Amino acid sequence: MSDPDDLACVVAQTMLAREGTGAAWGLEIEASRQGYARAAMTIRADMLNGHGTGHGGMIFALADSAFAYACNSRNQTTVAQHAAITFLSPVREGERLVAEAQERAVEGRSGVYDVVVRAGERVVAVFQGLSRAVGGAVVER
Amino acid sequence: MSDPDDLACVVAQTMLAREGTGAAWGLEIEASRQGYARAAMTIRADMLNGHGTGHGGMIFALADSAFAYACNSRNQTTVAQHAAITFLSPVREGERLVAEAQERAVEGRSGVYDVVVRAGERVVAVFQGLSRAVGGAVVER
Amino acid sequence: MSDPDDLACVVAQTMLAREGTGAAWGLEIEASRQGYARAAMTIRADMLNGHGTGHGGMIFALADSAFAYACNSRNQTTVAQHAAITFLSPVREGERLVAEAQERAVEGRSGVYDVVVRAGERVVAVFQGLSRAVGGAVVER
Amino acid sequence: MSDPDDLACVVAQTMLAREGTGAAWGLEIEASRQGYARAAMTIRADMLNGHGTGHGGMIFALADSAFAYACNSRNQTTVAQHAAITFLSPVREGERLVAEAQERAVEGRSGVYDVVVRAGERVVAVFQGLSRAVGGAVVER
Repeated sequence: MSDPDDLACVVAQTMLAREGTGAAWGLEIEASRQGYARAAMTIRADMLNGHGTGHGGMIFALADSAFAYACNSRNQTTVAQHAAITFLSPVREGERLVAEAQERAVEGRSGVYDVVVRAGERVVAVFQGLSRAVGGAVVER
Repeated sequence: MSDPDDLACVVAQTMLAREGTGAAWGLEIEASRQGYARAAMTIRADMLNGHGTGHGGMIFALADSAFAYACNSRNQTTVAQHAAITFLSPVREGERLVAEAQERAVEGRSGVYDVVVRAGERVVAVFQGLSRAVGGAVVER
Repeated sequence: MSDPDDLACVVAQTMLAREGTGAAWGLEIEASRQGYARAAMTIRADMLNGHGTGHGGMIFALADSAFAYACNSRNQTTVAQHAAITFLSPVREGERLVAEAQERAVEGRSGVYDVVVRAGERVVAVFQGLSRAVGGAVVER
Repeated sequence: MSDPDDLACVVAQTMLAREGTGAAWGLEIEASRQGYARAAMTIRADMLNGHGTGHGGMIFALADSAFAYACNSRNQTTVAQHAAITFLSPVREGERLVAEAQERAVEGRSGVYDVVVRAGERVVAVFQGLSRAVGGAVVER
């Protein structure tokens, strides 16, 4: 598997298959390449907060998942150190959210990734994550 | 209900009862006062990420919930605008996490809240949220 | 002045002329368009920290300035509410830093801007700012 | 020098003496202890932005300096990896700002520090920094 985008795809699918959260949340990976991932999820009743809109934790969780697939895409085990999210628009039950993660910069073991979360054309949230490579491969080859 | 801490408690319990997430995650409110809330949750198999540790999204979700109870504690509907989290230590399945939210500053409609998430004595994550009061009461009186 | 990019240019140059900081720091605006600005500054001895490298405050200050020009580019007075910076590589005295600010999303009065700070090809820092339009024009027309 | 607070004081004063910024900004260290520092600075005309209020970069710079003194207080060379600031109230020329940095958590080489910036009783900004110890002492002993 010499193509870096094919490797990214295998890593992302392997992570999704191993995790408990993806199945619990109905998360799907729509696309994955080196330094990039796009994941989607539909907001259900058990994902609503006390104001009746999508819980910030679930919006963050989707963005954080896309970030994880993108920052592990070179098959080097990488974890989140820090992440920040700005909530721009509330989300309603039944809306399908799509989170698109893009690598912004990598320097040594650190990387910065931007994630935009949309419901259709509407930007729901903007996320930025700082990752750290900790050594070891995600997928044995 | 003239006592501000009693009001905070009613608001927090009402939010928890209304939300879909609290029941889904097994979240409990341990304490709530004006400008303060403490909430707890146990990490289950369906909350693990692809590396086999607690998903950052779930750790964030717990912290964000404690933040929400604290920033709504004056019974003025308040939403999260921005939040940031630093992950300091991985979490294992079965660990009980406790998130303690404390008001740091309020200026006009904006508020800043600090949340520390612990597993026993260990600090797992540190969170800071920026809230905005949007008008209206959480609980009718 | 019906062209939005011409207006952005006038606003940025007016802000620079009014501010005390631009002259003090030797800051130059290299480019400005609607939702975009690029500013540059050279790190001097009086901008070094106790470790002998460029002070994070000065790197932030440059990024924050580019953010300000970009988020005021529609001639609506807009202020920073929140900003975050990740430092990826230390900066030496004499290095010329270029900060490029790009609008990521605008929703109501809120906007999110990404700024990348480079020294040559090297990414020195990545910044993300949350702005709020507060009413009024920057430049009278 | 076996007292940790005395060591913290020597480290902070040494850093201030070495840096170009402290003298340029008229920065003073009011107090320093292990995991804690308080620094002050008066906003001058050359620190004002294009709206005529204190430039966010200078408010950040003061907070970041207090953070640096606090996170280096154990005499282990430590750098900022990430920092975030929320601006709560504008600052006028001539106001004296005091930044108080407090250690929130340390885990391995990472530390989290909270800084509150005040002008008198008014909270002007809230800052949170993530540090990383990189090895080596600040002050030879």
